[in-house]
Amino acid sequence: MNDVLKKVMGIADDVYKKILAKKNPSLSMPIRSLQNVSYDPKVGFFEAIGKCKARTLTASTVKTFAQTLLMMNESKKLIKTDDIATKREVYYISKNWGEALFREQPESDTVMDDFEAMMEVNREQLGFIPEEKGGEVAGNLVIIDKDVESGKDLKIDCTKFGSGAYSIPISVEHLKFETDAKFILAIETAGMFQRLVKHKYWKKAGCILISMGGVPTRACRRFIRRLSEAKKLPVYAFTDGDFYGYMNIYRTLKVGSGNAAHINKFFCVPNAKFLGVTPQDIIDYKLPTHPLKDVDVKRGKDAIKNDPFVHHYKEWERAIHLQLSLGKRAEQQAFAKYDLNFVIDKYLPDKLKNQKTWLP
Amino acid sequence: MNDVLKKVMGIADDVYKKILAKKNPSLSMPIRSLQNVSYDPKVGFFEAIGKCKARTLTASTVKTFAQTLLMMNESKKLIKTDDIATKREVYYISKNWGEALFREQPESDTVMDDFEAMMEVNREQLGFIPEEKGGEVAGNLVIIDKDVESGKDLKIDCTKFGSGAYSIPISVEHLKFETDAKFILAIETAGMFQRLVKHKYWKKAGCILISMGGVPTRACRRFIRRLSEAKKLPVYAFTDGDFYGYMNIYRTLKVGSGNAAHINKFFCVPNAKFLGVTPQDIIDYKLPTHPLKDVDVKRGKDAIKNDPFVHHYKEWERAIHLQLSLGKRAEQQAFAKYDLNFVIDKYLPDKLKNQKTWLP
Repeated sequence: MNDVLKKVMGIADDVYKKILAKKNPSLSMPIRSLQNVSYDPKVGFFEAIGKCKARTLTASTVKTFAQTLLMMNESKKLIKTDDIATKREVYYISKNWGEALFREQPESDTVMDDFEAMMEVNREQLGFIPEEKGGEVAGNLVIIDKDVESGKDLKIDCTKFGSGAYSIPISVEHLKFETDAKFILAIETAGMFQRLVKHKYWKKAGCILISMGGVPTRACRRFIRRLSEAKKLPVYAFTDGDFYGYMNIYRTLKVGSGNAAHINKFFCVPNAKFLGVTPQDIIDYKLPTHPLKDVDVKRGKDAIKNDPFVHHYKEWERAIHLQLSLGKRAEQQAFAKYDLNFVIDKYLPDKLKNQKTWLP
Repeated sequence: MNDVLKKVMGIADDVYKKILAKKNPSLSMPIRSLQNVSYDPKVGFFEAIGKCKARTLTASTVKTFAQTLLMMNESKKLIKTDDIATKREVYYISKNWGEALFREQPESDTVMDDFEAMMEVNREQLGFIPEEKGGEVAGNLVIIDKDVESGKDLKIDCTKFGSGAYSIPISVEHLKFETDAKFILAIETAGMFQRLVKHKYWKKAGCILISMGGVPTRACRRFIRRLSEAKKLPVYAFTDGDFYGYMNIYRTLKVGSGNAAHINKFFCVPNAKFLGVTPQDIIDYKLPTHPLKDVDVKRGKDAIKNDPFVHHYKEWERAIHLQLSLGKRAEQQAFAKYDLNFVIDKYLPDKLKNQKTWLP
C-alpha cells in the first residue's frame, strides 16, 4: 500500500473510530487563501503558513462532510486500481451519491481542493487529473514510462521526433528521466518552439526544449519541476517581453500562485531564471514593439504594489519600472526583424553567455 | 524545383514581363467569402465557385501590390531553404520593407490569405505556418518524418509512448505513415483522450486516437486528412453532445468553414462520421445533462436556418430539432455516471457495432 493510500485510510479510520466512540468526527485542512501565504526565497515558492480550518460533523455540514468522505473513497479506488478521473468525471460520479450529489462542478472542485490540501499532496497523486494537458518536449532527454499491460519500462527518446514532439501526459508522477542536457529552455509560444525544433537548436545548445503554450498547465509545471529536480537541471524561461510573460507565465512557473498555495511546493520551479525577452533587451536589440495598453500598465503597477515576488527581487521591480517608462512591449517573434533565425544564431547564444542580462 | 516554387516564380515572371512590355501588371485571386461558396457532398467540402478579383497595379494599389510581391519573395526563400515562418514572424519581417511595411498584423494576414488563395495551395506549402499547434496522437501508427541534418527517415512509433503521446507539429506536409489500424477516433477533450490512452483503448479497438482539444487546429485537421487519405482510414468523431461539438468541431473537421473556402480542400475530412455523443444517446443512455443556454438555442436555430451542411443532411436537421426540444446538452464525461470506464467497456463498443446510431 503506498503512502498516500495509507494516509487516506488513516483519516477515514479516525472518523470511523470517533463515530464508534460516539464523538463528533472532524476533518482538519489548511485555509486556502492569500492570507495564509508567505514568500521566502530560501523556500522558493508561496507557502501556506499553517492556518487550518476544522470541518466537524454537524447538521449544517453533514452534506459536505459526506461528500468529502465519498470523494476520499473514490480516490482510494483510483489509487488501488491505478486509474484516473478528471475533475469533471468526479463531478459526474457523484450523480450516484443520492442526496450527497454535487449540483454544480464548482462544489465538487472545492471539496477536491480541500481534500488535496488536507492530504498535503497534489491531487494527481490522489488519482484526480485536470481536464487540460499541454506542454511539448523535444531534445536531449529519454523519458521512462511504464507499459500499462506488461508493467515493463518504455523508453521514449525525445531526440527522435523529427519535426514533432513528445506531448506531456496529464499526470506525470510515474515518469523517470535520463539526460545529458545542460539546461531546460521553457518557451512561451508554440511557434518559437517549432522554429527551435525545426533547426535542432536542442542539439546545438545541448538542452531540452519545452513548449508551455502560454501559462503552463499543472502537468507541464509538474513535469518541468520533476525533471529539473531529478536531474539537477537549471530552467531558463523564454517568454514575450510583457507583463503577462513575466508574471502570469514566469512567476507562476517559478514560485506558483497565491490562490493554490498548498500545491505550490509540488508545481513551482524555484531554480528557474528569466532569460528573456527582458525590458533591457527591447532597448539593446532595438526590437519592434507594441504600445502598452491601459490593462498592461495596470498589471505592471499591480505587480509592483502587491506581488511578494516582485517585492523580494529589486531587479524585477526595476525591470517593471523600466518597461512602464518605455510604454512598450515586445514579442519573442520580434527578432525576425533581423533574420528568421537571428534568435538561434545570435540572441540565444549571446544571452546564454551573459547571464548578467537575465532576471531572477 | 518543386511545383509550388515554380508557380510562385511563374507569377513573378508574368509581372516582370508585363512591366518590361510597359503594360500594367495584374494579379488575379479568388474572392474569399460565403458568397463564393457551394456545398456538394460528392465534393465533400465547402468549395469556392470561382469568382475572382484582379489586383492591378495602380496608384491606389501600389502598396498592397508591393507587399504581395515581397511576401511572394519571402515564400520563395522559405521554400528554397526549407525553412518556416509563422504569420507573426512574417509581419515582423516586413519591418525591413521600408514604406511597404505592415502597420498591423491583420494587414499582413490578409495579404497572406490572398496569396494562399491565388496559389491554390495551403499556406504551409508556402513556408508559412500558424502560431498554434495542437493535436495529440496515440495508437497503431508509425509516423515517418525526416531528420533535418542527415535527411534520413525517422520512424516514430505511436504505440510506444506509454501515458504520453505524439504531438503533431505545426506543419505536417512532409510526414508519411504506416499503420494497420481500422479507423481513426478523433476526440474532443484531452481528458477523454487520456482515459483511452491510459487503458490502451487503441489496442483493444485497433485504432488511432487523436485528441483535438476543442476545435481542431489547421495542423490537426491537415494531419487527420492526410493520414485518412493516405491509408484509406475512416474517421469517427467523438465530441460532447452539444451544438459546439456538432458544428464548430465536427462540421469544421468534415467540410470546413465558410470564411476560408479556398483551403477547405486541403483541410476537410469528407469521410468523417459522427459517432457521438448524439442527442439520441442522451435519451438512450439516460445521461446527466445541462440545460441549453439562450446562446446554445440560438446556435442550433442558426444551424437549421443557415448552414448548407445541415440543409443537406436531414438526419442532422432532425437531430438538432430533437436536441432543441430536449433543451439539454451532455458531455463526453457524462458516462462516468455509470462507471469511469463505461465509455471503454460499453459505450464505444456498442456504438461501433451499430453505425445506424451515428450521424453523417
